[in-house]
Amino acid sequence: MVKFQQLLTLFLILAFVSISAQLGQRKEIRIPDVNGYKTLKCDFHIHTVFSDGNVWPDLRPEEAWSEGLDAIALTDHIEYQPKKNDIPTNLNRPYEIAKPAADKAGITLIRGAEITRGMPPGHMNLIFVKDANALIKEDWKETIAEAKKQGALLFWNHPGWKAQQPDGIAKWYPEHTYVLEQGIMMGIEVVNDRDYYPEVHNWCNEKKLTLMGDTDIHSPIMFVYNLQAGEHRTVTLVFAKDNSEEAIKDALINRRTVVYYKNQLIGDESFLAPIFEKSVSFKSVKVNTTGKATCYLRVSNDSDVPYTLELKSSNNKIIFPQTFVIPANRTVLYPVRAAEENISLSENVKAEYEVKNLLTAPGKGIIIAFNFDIEVTPKKK
Amino acid sequence: MVKFQQLLTLFLILAFVSISAQLGQRKEIRIPDVNGYKTLKCDFHIHTVFSDGNVWPDLRPEEAWSEGLDAIALTDHIEYQPKKNDIPTNLNRPYEIAKPAADKAGITLIRGAEITRGMPPGHMNLIFVKDANALIKEDWKETIAEAKKQGALLFWNHPGWKAQQPDGIAKWYPEHTYVLEQGIMMGIEVVNDRDYYPEVHNWCNEKKLTLMGDTDIHSPIMFVYNLQAGEHRTVTLVFAKDNSEEAIKDALINRRTVVYYKNQLIGDESFLAPIFEKSVSFKSVKVNTTGKATCYLRVSNDSDVPYTLELKSSNNKIIFPQTFVIPANRTVLYPVRAAEENISLSENVKAEYEVKNLLTAPGKGIIIAFNFDIEVTPKKK
Amino acid sequence: MVKFQQLLTLFLILAFVSISAQLGQRKEIRIPDVNGYKTLKCDFHIHTVFSDGNVWPDLRPEEAWSEGLDAIALTDHIEYQPKKNDIPTNLNRPYEIAKPAADKAGITLIRGAEITRGMPPGHMNLIFVKDANALIKEDWKETIAEAKKQGALLFWNHPGWKAQQPDGIAKWYPEHTYVLEQGIMMGIEVVNDRDYYPEVHNWCNEKKLTLMGDTDIHSPIMFVYNLQAGEHRTVTLVFAKDNSEEAIKDALINRRTVVYYKNQLIGDESFLAPIFEKSVSFKSVKVNTTGKATCYLRVSNDSDVPYTLELKSSNNKIIFPQTFVIPANRTVLYPVRAAEENISLSENVKAEYEVKNLLTAPGKGIIIAFNFDIEVTPKKK
Amino acid sequence: MVKFQQLLTLFLILAFVSISAQLGQRKEIRIPDVNGYKTLKCDFHIHTVFSDGNVWPDLRPEEAWSEGLDAIALTDHIEYQPKKNDIPTNLNRPYEIAKPAADKAGITLIRGAEITRGMPPGHMNLIFVKDANALIKEDWKETIAEAKKQGALLFWNHPGWKAQQPDGIAKWYPEHTYVLEQGIMMGIEVVNDRDYYPEVHNWCNEKKLTLMGDTDIHSPIMFVYNLQAGEHRTVTLVFAKDNSEEAIKDALINRRTVVYYKNQLIGDESFLAPIFEKSVSFKSVKVNTTGKATCYLRVSNDSDVPYTLELKSSNNKIIFPQTFVIPANRTVLYPVRAAEENISLSENVKAEYEVKNLLTAPGKGIIIAFNFDIEVTPKKK
Repeated sequence: MVKFQQLLTLFLILAFVSISAQLGQRKEIRIPDVNGYKTLKCDFHIHTVFSDGNVWPDLRPEEAWSEGLDAIALTDHIEYQPKKNDIPTNLNRPYEIAKPAADKAGITLIRGAEITRGMPPGHMNLIFVKDANALIKEDWKETIAEAKKQGALLFWNHPGWKAQQPDGIAKWYPEHTYVLEQGIMMGIEVVNDRDYYPEVHNWCNEKKLTLMGDTDIHSPIMFVYNLQAGEHRTVTLVFAKDNSEEAIKDALINRRTVVYYKNQLIGDESFLAPIFEKSVSFKSVKVNTTGKATCYLRVSNDSDVPYTLELKSSNNKIIFPQTFVIPANRTVLYPVRAAEENISLSENVKAEYEVKNLLTAPGKGIIIAFNFDIEVTPKKK
Repeated sequence: MVKFQQLLTLFLILAFVSISAQLGQRKEIRIPDVNGYKTLKCDFHIHTVFSDGNVWPDLRPEEAWSEGLDAIALTDHIEYQPKKNDIPTNLNRPYEIAKPAADKAGITLIRGAEITRGMPPGHMNLIFVKDANALIKEDWKETIAEAKKQGALLFWNHPGWKAQQPDGIAKWYPEHTYVLEQGIMMGIEVVNDRDYYPEVHNWCNEKKLTLMGDTDIHSPIMFVYNLQAGEHRTVTLVFAKDNSEEAIKDALINRRTVVYYKNQLIGDESFLAPIFEKSVSFKSVKVNTTGKATCYLRVSNDSDVPYTLELKSSNNKIIFPQTFVIPANRTVLYPVRAAEENISLSENVKAEYEVKNLLTAPGKGIIIAFNFDIEVTPKKK
Repeated sequence: MVKFQQLLTLFLILAFVSISAQLGQRKEIRIPDVNGYKTLKCDFHIHTVFSDGNVWPDLRPEEAWSEGLDAIALTDHIEYQPKKNDIPTNLNRPYEIAKPAADKAGITLIRGAEITRGMPPGHMNLIFVKDANALIKEDWKETIAEAKKQGALLFWNHPGWKAQQPDGIAKWYPEHTYVLEQGIMMGIEVVNDRDYYPEVHNWCNEKKLTLMGDTDIHSPIMFVYNLQAGEHRTVTLVFAKDNSEEAIKDALINRRTVVYYKNQLIGDESFLAPIFEKSVSFKSVKVNTTGKATCYLRVSNDSDVPYTLELKSSNNKIIFPQTFVIPANRTVLYPVRAAEENISLSENVKAEYEVKNLLTAPGKGIIIAFNFDIEVTPKKK
Repeated sequence: MVKFQQLLTLFLILAFVSISAQLGQRKEIRIPDVNGYKTLKCDFHIHTVFSDGNVWPDLRPEEAWSEGLDAIALTDHIEYQPKKNDIPTNLNRPYEIAKPAADKAGITLIRGAEITRGMPPGHMNLIFVKDANALIKEDWKETIAEAKKQGALLFWNHPGWKAQQPDGIAKWYPEHTYVLEQGIMMGIEVVNDRDYYPEVHNWCNEKKLTLMGDTDIHSPIMFVYNLQAGEHRTVTLVFAKDNSEEAIKDALINRRTVVYYKNQLIGDESFLAPIFEKSVSFKSVKVNTTGKATCYLRVSNDSDVPYTLELKSSNNKIIFPQTFVIPANRTVLYPVRAAEENISLSENVKAEYEVKNLLTAPGKGIIIAFNFDIEVTPKKK
C-alpha cells in the first residue's frame, strides 16, 4: 500500500517549476528556420505610457526577450495622448528609453508610431520611422507624406475593429486605395491580438500585401496572455537573412511573413509546408493483433506548434484515423488498420491530410501526405 | 490496456484552468477573521511611474483586487524622481489616477509617499497623508513635521537594505530615535519584498512598534511574484473593524497586524493562535494493524497558509511524527503508533508541537497541542 | 529597470506547488450541503485487476480520498474475466482487499459487481450486494433474482455505449422493462466517464429513475483525468443524512442525486437551485463614469463549480451582459449600463439569467434572478 | 484601463495545456547523445502486482514511453509474494504481459527479477534473465548460480535502505564480496527512488562498478513522481550503440552509465563534460553603462537539466557572479563587471566554475570554463 505520509513529504520538499514563460529567463519559440532564412518572431504593434499604454517603455524589450521574440516596434498613438497632462507628448521617447534594455537583451528595436484617426482611414502603423514627432500633423495625408520621406513602412491596423466597424467586418475605403497608391503601405493586420479578419486575409492574397499579426498590447503582457499556462502572444514570423533592421524591412517589403496566432500559422504555402516538414517526422510500427491487421504511426512534433490534421484521401483497404492531432514537442501513436478482419496487408500506403491550422486562405489548410510501406499479418488467435 | 489515441483526444479537447491568480478575477486569500476583527490583506509600499516604478497607477488596484487584497498605499519616492524629465513631479497624481479603479474594485486606496534619504535616516513611508506635494522639503525633518500636521503615520522601510547596510543588518541611529520621539512613527518593515530582518522583529517586540510587511513593488506584480504557480506577495494582515481608512489607521496605531510572507505569519500570539485554531481541525482514526497499535490523525487545513509542525513533547508510550506538515486547503493523515509491538492503548493522548511558520520572535514559533482519546488493539495475525 | 539576475534567483529558490489533486493529500470538492443533507461525492462504477482494470483494489480508496470523494463502489465484471488465468475469479476480493484502506481514509466502501452481457440487457451495476460470487449465473435473470435476495440496488450502465449501440443512442428494450418490473432498478447512468446521454436524462425524468454519473475507471485515475490541471472526475452527488451505507442507499432509492460531470450539474431544480444560491453572492458597485451611467456587479462564487449564465429578460432601460461567467472560487466584476448616454438611473433592477451548466433536462438550465437597487448619475465631463 | 470583463472572457475561452508528461503522449528527455553513443533513458527496477506492486504489468511500458524512457526491466520480488493467494506465483508473466505494449511503444523490455533477502546480502536485481521462475531457490547462492547460467547481470539494490540499515549507511559484507567474485555483479544502485548513497558512489569509483539509478516503483508512476509539475523519475542514462538488449547489456558491463536524479547527473567526467558542452552555449553582450563597465553573459541551455555553477577562479580585475544558474531549456543573462568604477576593459577573460549538479564523486562537480574577449568602456554621465 502506498504510504500517505511518505508521499506527502516528498511532494512538499521538492521545488517544482512548470513555467512556460517568465521574466528573467528567455524561452525560445520553437519554429524552425526555413528556405535559407532565420524565422524571426516579431511584434510590430506595442504601446507604452507615452500614449494609452500602462507600462514604461523599458519593460517591453524585457517582456519580448523572455517570450522568445527577436524584434519589436513601439508604436504609440500619434493623435491619441490621454496622458499628456502628466506626460507631455514626445513620440521619440519610447524608443530612446527602451533602447538600452533592447541592446542588453539582443532584441531589435524598431521606431514606430500609430496614425489614430476615425474610419476611414482608421488606425495605421508606421515603422522604421526616423523622427516620430515630425509625424504629428493636422492632416493624416501629411503624416503619410512625412513618413514616406523618412523611409517608413505602413500597415493598416485591425481593419475589423468593432469600435470602428460595429459588425466586425473590414471595409476597404477610397482612403485605403489612396494610401496604397502612395507606395508606403506594405501590409495589413490579418490578426490583431486575438481577432482574425478572414476578409483581410483574402485582400492580402489578392492585392499581394504582407500578412501582419500583432498584439496591440497596452498592459503588461502577462496580464493579457496567459504565458505561464502555455498561451503564446500573437506574433508575425519574419523570414529574414538576420535580425538587423534592414533584413527585417526587406522581408516585410517582400511578403516573407507568416502570422502565428492561437496555435495557428497563417501564410503562404511556400513557408507553411517547410515549417511542417521540418517539425514533423513519423515512423510506422508493426504490431501483432488478432482481428483487423494493425500498425501504428508514431508521429513526432519537434516544434511549439500543435498540428491538427483531417483525412482527405486514402487507400480504401485501410482505415486511417479521420482526425489526427500532433501536440507540440511530443510523440503520439495512431493506429492504421486493415478495413476487414483477418486479411494480411503488404503494400505501399498513402494518406493525404489537410493541416487545419496551417492556413493559406480562410478555412483552407495545406495538404500533406503520409506515405509508407505496410506489411502486417493478423495474429493467430 | 489504456487506449493511447482516446486519451490523447480527451486531454486535448478539455480546457484546463489551473490558475491561482490573474487579472480580471479576484481570488480571496483564505486566512480567517479573528478576535472580532476582519483580517484585511494590505500592502502599504507600492511604486508607479511617478517615481521609479514601471507601471501606470491605475494598474495597482487591479493587481491588488485580483490577488485578494483589501487595501493598498501608493508611496512614490519624494526625493527620487528619475523620470521627472518625462513626467514632471506631482506626488498627488498616483492616488488621483488610481482612485476610480480602486473604487470599482472595492479596494481601499491610501495616499502615501516615501521619504528617500541616505542612511540615516534612510527610507521611510508616510501614509494617510493629505497633500503629498507639500511633503517636498529640503530637510527631511521638515517633511516629517509637515506629515505630522497632515495626520499621517510613518514607518521605517527596509532597515537592513543592502544598498544602505552592506552587511544586511539593520542599525538604529539617533535619527530614528528622533523620528520616534515626534510621535509619528508607528512601525517598521520587518519584511520588505522577500527580505526578513530578525533584528527589526526584536525591535518591534521591545519598542512596541507595529510589524509591517510590504512588497515595495516597482514592476507589474506578476513579473516579481509567481502568482500563477501559487506564490503570494508579501502583505500586512490588518485586524480592523472594517475596511475604511479610519479602521485601518486605528489597527496600525494599535499594533493589530501580522506579516504574511513566504508562507509564514509573523506577529503576536494573540493573533497567530486563533488563526491556527480557526484554520486547522483534526480527528483521530482507528485502524486495525498487526504489530504496533496505530491510529491516524486526520488533519484538515481550511486556509491558504501551509503549517509546519515540530514535536516538542508527548506521551512516551506513543510515537508521534517528529515533523508534521498540513498543506493549505488540504487534509492529511499522520500515524500515531504505540512505542512497542503488540500492546493495547486506551488513554488520553497529548502532544505539543511548535508551529515553525507562526513566528512570535525570530526562530520562535507558537506552541499548540493535539489532545485526543486513543483506544487501539493490535490486530491478531 | 527590472533586474534579470535577481528575478531569476527568486524564481529558482522558491518551491511552488500548484497542484489540484494528488495522492497523500485530500482536496475537498467544494459544493455546499443543501436541503438539510450532506452533499456526498460518490463514484459507483470502478474496476480493478479482478476483472479488466489495471490496478490493485487498495489503490481505489486512496485515489478517491485524495480527490475529495466520500463513497465508492468496486464493481468488477461478473462475466468478463480476462485475467482469470493469472487471477482466479473471486468477486468478493476487491472489497476485502480495499476495505482497510477505505477505513483509514474514511471512505465508505460499497460492495458491487457488474452484469456484463450483450445488448439487451447490456451492462448493469449491482451495488450493496452481500456475496458477489453468488451472482455468477448462466442466466442474467438469475443474477438479478440473487441480487434482489441480497438486497442490492441495480442501475443500468452506459446505455448509449458505442460498442453496443454504434450510433451512440440508447434504446430501451423489453429486457429493461423486465428489470424495472423486478423492483431492483433504481437508476441509470446519464453520464459514464465523459459521455452524456440526453435521451437517458429524459427517461430518468419521465420514469422517475435516479440520475447516476460514474467514471467506469479501469486505469489509475490520474491517467484518465487530468486532476493536476484542475479537471474533476465524473461523480454522483448524493444528498444523504450521513456517509453510512444505509443513508446512501436511502438517498439513491429516493432519487436524491445530482450528476457532476465536466463542470456541469445535472439533476432536479430542488437541488440545483440551492446549490447555486449557497455558492453565489453578489453586490452592485457604483462608479462615476462619463457617458453611459454604469454600475458593476461584483459576483462571488464560493464553490468549485464555474457557472455560465445567459440573459433571459431584463429592464429595457438597462444593458446587462448577455453572457456571464462566474469562475469557481473567484469574484468577478460585470458592468450594468444605462441604455442611453447621460441619463441618470434610480430604480429597482432585475435581470433573469439561465444557468447553462445547471441542467434539469437536456439543454435546459435553471433560471435565476439578479435583483438590486441602482442609483447612478453620469459624471460631468 | 484594462477591461476586467474582456480579460475574463479571454481567459475562460482558451484551453491551456501546461503539461510536462502524461499518458498518451511521449515527451522526450532532452539530454544529448555523446561520445558516439545514443543516450538511452532506462529504469531497471520496477514492480507490478506479480509481487508487491499495485499495477498490472502492461501499464509499465506505457508509463515509460510517455516519460521519454527507452528501456525498462520488470523486476518483481522472487522471495516476497504477498499477493500469492490471489495471484499464484509466476515470475515470467510480468514480461509476457507487458511485451506487446512495449513493442507498440518501441520500449526495450528486459526480463528481470529481484532477490529479496535480509541483509546480508539484502536485495539484488537480476536482469537479462531467461526464465525467472527457475531463479526460485531456497539458497540465494543457488539463485545466483542459476542467474549466471542464464547469462544475467546482477546489481545490488538500495544498499543504504533504512529498513535494512537503520542509520541509512550502506555496509559491504563478505556476502557482497562473494557475489562480486562470482563475476555476475556489474553495478550497484547509487540512487534508489529519491535516496542517494554517497558511500556507494565512492565504492563504484573504487571498485570500478557500474553506477545504477532506478525508481523501484510499486505504484502508478504519477502517484509518486509529480511529472506534470516538471519532476522527473530517477533513471540510469545508458550510452549504447542502439536500443537493443545486447547494446544495453554491453554498456552496463562496460560502465557506460550516468545516473539522472533530482536534476543531478552522477557519473564519469568523460560523459558529464560532453553532456554539458553539447547543452550549454554562451555569448558576451556589450552594454553601455555608467559606473562600473559591464558586459553580460547570455547563456543558453538546450537540455532538460538545469545547471548550477559556482565560481572557482577568475581574473581579479573583473567581478563574475559567484553563483550561476542556467535553467533547463532557457537563456539567461548574467553581468560581468569591472572591479572598479570608470575603468575600461579590453582583454581576454576567463572564469572557472564548478558545475555543482554534475557529480563525479560525492560533493565534487566537474570544472568548466567561460572564456571570451571583453571590451567595454564606461558610459559618460
